[in-house]
Amino acid sequence: MSQQVKQNILAELEQLPLIDPHTHINPHSAASTTLADIMGYHYYTELAHSAGLPKSQIEEEGLAPKEKVGRLVEKLDDLDNTVQLSWLIEIAQEFFGFQDDKITLANWESLYDTALSKMNEDNWEQQVLKQSKLEQVYLTNDFDDPLAGFDTNLYVPCLRTDDLVFHYTKSATRDRLAKATGVDAGDAGSLKDAIGKLFSHFTKNNARACAISLPPMFSPQQVSAAAVDPILKKVISGSELSCDEANQLSCFIFWSLAEFCAEFKLPFDLMIGVNRRVYEDGVFQGQDLYDSRTSLFQYKELFNAFPTVTFPVSVLAQTSNQELVSYSWIFPNVVTNGHWWYSNIPAHIEQDTRARLQAVPQSKQIGYYSDMYKLEFALPKFAMYRRVLSKVLANDFVIDRGWSEERAINLGKTVLRGNVERIFGGL
Amino acid sequence: MSQQVKQNILAELEQLPLIDPHTHINPHSAASTTLADIMGYHYYTELAHSAGLPKSQIEEEGLAPKEKVGRLVEKLDDLDNTVQLSWLIEIAQEFFGFQDDKITLANWESLYDTALSKMNEDNWEQQVLKQSKLEQVYLTNDFDDPLAGFDTNLYVPCLRTDDLVFHYTKSATRDRLAKATGVDAGDAGSLKDAIGKLFSHFTKNNARACAISLPPMFSPQQVSAAAVDPILKKVISGSELSCDEANQLSCFIFWSLAEFCAEFKLPFDLMIGVNRRVYEDGVFQGQDLYDSRTSLFQYKELFNAFPTVTFPVSVLAQTSNQELVSYSWIFPNVVTNGHWWYSNIPAHIEQDTRARLQAVPQSKQIGYYSDMYKLEFALPKFAMYRRVLSKVLANDFVIDRGWSEERAINLGKTVLRGNVERIFGGL
Amino acid sequence: MSQQVKQNILAELEQLPLIDPHTHINPHSAASTTLADIMGYHYYTELAHSAGLPKSQIEEEGLAPKEKVGRLVEKLDDLDNTVQLSWLIEIAQEFFGFQDDKITLANWESLYDTALSKMNEDNWEQQVLKQSKLEQVYLTNDFDDPLAGFDTNLYVPCLRTDDLVFHYTKSATRDRLAKATGVDAGDAGSLKDAIGKLFSHFTKNNARACAISLPPMFSPQQVSAAAVDPILKKVISGSELSCDEANQLSCFIFWSLAEFCAEFKLPFDLMIGVNRRVYEDGVFQGQDLYDSRTSLFQYKELFNAFPTVTFPVSVLAQTSNQELVSYSWIFPNVVTNGHWWYSNIPAHIEQDTRARLQAVPQSKQIGYYSDMYKLEFALPKFAMYRRVLSKVLANDFVIDRGWSEERAINLGKTVLRGNVERIFGGL
Ligand SMILES: [Zn+2]
Ligand SMILES: [Zn+2]
Ligand SMILES: [Zn+2]
Repeated sequence: MSQQVKQNILAELEQLPLIDPHTHINPHSAASTTLADIMGYHYYTELAHSAGLPKSQIEEEGLAPKEKVGRLVEKLDDLDNTVQLSWLIEIAQEFFGFQDDKITLANWESLYDTALSKMNEDNWEQQVLKQSKLEQVYLTNDFDDPLAGFDTNLYVPCLRTDDLVFHYTKSATRDRLAKATGVDAGDAGSLKDAIGKLFSHFTKNNARACAISLPPMFSPQQVSAAAVDPILKKVISGSELSCDEANQLSCFIFWSLAEFCAEFKLPFDLMIGVNRRVYEDGVFQGQDLYDSRTSLFQYKELFNAFPTVTFPVSVLAQTSNQELVSYSWIFPNVVTNGHWWYSNIPAHIEQDTRARLQAVPQSKQIGYYSDMYKLEFALPKFAMYRRVLSKVLANDFVIDRGWSEERAINLGKTVLRGNVERIFGGL
Repeated sequence: MSQQVKQNILAELEQLPLIDPHTHINPHSAASTTLADIMGYHYYTELAHSAGLPKSQIEEEGLAPKEKVGRLVEKLDDLDNTVQLSWLIEIAQEFFGFQDDKITLANWESLYDTALSKMNEDNWEQQVLKQSKLEQVYLTNDFDDPLAGFDTNLYVPCLRTDDLVFHYTKSATRDRLAKATGVDAGDAGSLKDAIGKLFSHFTKNNARACAISLPPMFSPQQVSAAAVDPILKKVISGSELSCDEANQLSCFIFWSLAEFCAEFKLPFDLMIGVNRRVYEDGVFQGQDLYDSRTSLFQYKELFNAFPTVTFPVSVLAQTSNQELVSYSWIFPNVVTNGHWWYSNIPAHIEQDTRARLQAVPQSKQIGYYSDMYKLEFALPKFAMYRRVLSKVLANDFVIDRGWSEERAINLGKTVLRGNVERIFGGL
Repeated sequence: MSQQVKQNILAELEQLPLIDPHTHINPHSAASTTLADIMGYHYYTELAHSAGLPKSQIEEEGLAPKEKVGRLVEKLDDLDNTVQLSWLIEIAQEFFGFQDDKITLANWESLYDTALSKMNEDNWEQQVLKQSKLEQVYLTNDFDDPLAGFDTNLYVPCLRTDDLVFHYTKSATRDRLAKATGVDAGDAGSLKDAIGKLFSHFTKNNARACAISLPPMFSPQQVSAAAVDPILKKVISGSELSCDEANQLSCFIFWSLAEFCAEFKLPFDLMIGVNRRVYEDGVFQGQDLYDSRTSLFQYKELFNAFPTVTFPVSVLAQTSNQELVSYSWIFPNVVTNGHWWYSNIPAHIEQDTRARLQAVPQSKQIGYYSDMYKLEFALPKFAMYRRVLSKVLANDFVIDRGWSEERAINLGKTVLRGNVERIFGGL
């Protein structure tokens, strides 16, 4: 019975047009141009590297796209079990009519060529959007992005702030900020002014969120302008900061972002838990890991200080999910947001979804985002999520709690789509 | 097959009369008098608040019970998915003949009135006890509770000690202790005497446990009288303690409690992991959360020092459950105790129950307690637990290990009822 | 359907001959001689002790084997639910024709006698190997083991190094090292020479791994010879080391082991997370527990520094499994290794296996080892693992991902057997 109920729910959820509330899409080049754009996604390069393909083979300068794909295909058998590879197969099957179960030395060239000819069609981007039922795609924009030359109602800007908070000591960051805002931010006051100009620019261009990824040990605190002024002076004079000073500066900028989120009524996406460059010889974007010893308790002051700011929170470690559930159940301004990166596999999504659906108000859950770099990935990633969601709705709600399928489907629609509109703003 | 086996086991477990080994029942007013007593439970107020109902609406001074229920009903749809709301619906259906799936603006007044007329019946409390198959209900008594005016064999006292351990620096606590014991506790010796008098009073009145909830960072250590005497002097003189001094004082009092548990042969319920007042603007009892970075390793010295004291341990974070399983598997004096608060949802109960049943001696597991404030909640909470327990017994024991249903049912009865009697003492 | 698919997969996996890549078998006395060898396994003594059997009863000097078994039998009913007891029943049924579900006061003597007569047969060891389909059994050898007098192709040596890293301050350890190597290791240089001789001796005798168990707080760092020389002087002079000095010494020796693993091309098994002697009055081998607050982030420098060394990593706490999955997915030299000790129960194996199979390249997963002390335990332990593995393959791959049974079976064979050969070297 369970399987049939799941299928019934899934069939309904598959009809729902989607808003993807967090991606890394380049709006000027949203879809792929060759299969190398797809297989160059860090999941495949890092897994192939992990399975033994040398980095030099993967990242060789001037490597032609087809040659790159050919090299990666040699390692695909080692990754055959991974859910990430199943995304690739699903892309091949759904978009390119691929008929086999595996991409092999025997069939990859034909797949490559088919993909190339599809991608060369005039309206490939629109085809992908349509077939994926994507109505809106949220971006991750550098703070100095001009946000020009694309339809911001289709590709919705979000202000990404990692560089400001964690790399403000680099002169390149400061130069970019000065250039983007026209403000020479030499003290706390002018730095805040500059940040305010970014919010103004972004919200004028339909931005729907401010966003940041955070290391496990970060614990935001309010820092006064008086405390940060001498630190900023040291930065500008080129002196090295102590760990404590660097942290105070990060806290000051972070807190300022939250203040502007309140002022500009922007949700502040927190993506908590990543350590950057843990594996220094890893491939591009395949170097980051985490320390699961982190807690939302570190955000106590922030959540208390900004009751009017909505914080959609993503956690990297599955061991943080129960805290996310509990903090969302208690704090009105904390909502659960998707299944991020190392937690984005069915084994974790299933447990995390069960706990969220059982204990967080349904209006406070953003079910999923794709985190994709190329448009083609929304389809298999949302498909994976919908299958897990349907399974949980079937087992925990229809079978265990006696709900009608219709009622379970409505719950599914709320977390998959309705809340995205309500929390970030609609179409 | 799995569903049928589960139903067979469940049907048997539902026949079993219950002892509820941890509640917050007021024995002088055990049952509810209006639906507001039920819907005023912090789970509903905090979830409604989290979903957007202002605190001022919920906690308005002089708010009439019916008006309070009406306001909460407006937010129930947002909580429809939560298991906590399913408790409410089950109460309405089982006790008040409620026929619908949801409590809505259209039907709540009729439910309110039906509940009111049932609660006004002379023997409502007895009706609830009988329908819930409750034979005994353990209390959580303030240390200065006179324990008079109720049947301590039905409502069994337990000595709650949070105030002594964590709020002894408040003069109100010291005044209450002096008044309750007639001892003016000015040094370590007299403080111990006073605590001894509490144990004497409680055990004379059929107390079955000493109990305390503990913050994640607490790590009990033995502290000498000589070390604590000067600290007590500072307390009495009204000086502020340093963090270290406050911790030493807490440790001294905590350790003394363990010593008296040994002397008076009382189990010591440890409820590990709560941070109080994390969300300061939360509703009443809806302000506490946790930091999951805690370990039973912090209790190593305690468990070694008191081999004759049984420690029924509850953990707040699901990530602590494996440690609880392992420590109970190794330490004769550690037993698993229920599914507490943020872990009291089926997604966590199921995983936690599986691990406990697979690796802790069956004689060392207290399956469940309701933690209720009003009698009506034992029924849906124990019902939820029994369903999960039956599912685990069916899948892990009957199907996966080939047990007979009867054998699985006996295991269920042991953790649900038998161990409560054996560990805390029988009827 | 799920059950049938699982059975089909299981039937195939049961045909596969096994290599057991981590045990504590004594090659000179691999099989049991009485049932007391089996029931004396720490799982039964510690669980019986935890359930109330006094240590003095279990470890009485001169206790006859049959009497010991008789005493343990009295507590078996309390352990009836544990998966560890199911191993015992399965041994009794599979090896000794035991027909009952439980070992009781009424039937244990007959079981004891049957077992005794089987174990007395000339070729009992070979019978067990054959019935268990064991082709090779890896050992855990003291660093000064002569490795003589047994077939190292059947019983494969592994160099266990806990004593060197964590007990080098004990003169007994240093004496053993001197005796084993002929090197008087008075400074960093000669200590390295001595360790090199151990690697030479072990690899000459077919050793396939260096191995160590590590406490949760250990974080390996490179320490220079110059820094460790004065510390070694203090050790030899009999002075007590500070915590920091002891840690530096441990790090130096540990790092040297990793260097020799690189030179001798040996995998380095890391078993991360155990605290020794937490329960000091526990029975033999029943005193160790853990603090789940540990992270693979602590091994960042090690994994970066030794790209040519394969690190098969076992984690003790289930909460570490996601990190293990993620680090294995990113680092080419990290592979997942079995389900260790407190995580070796179906509830945890199932979740851990799901995550590993969904996200780690299939070529980088060592499915299981028995960790046994007596040969008879490989059968029930591998049987338990195969059942869980088959369930996961059936549900997650055949049903959820549409794989053929054959494809799922091949994945099972890879993690159960193929990778052991590939990673440690074949027969
Ligand atoms: Zn992202
Ligand atoms: Zn309570
Ligand atoms: Zn071992």
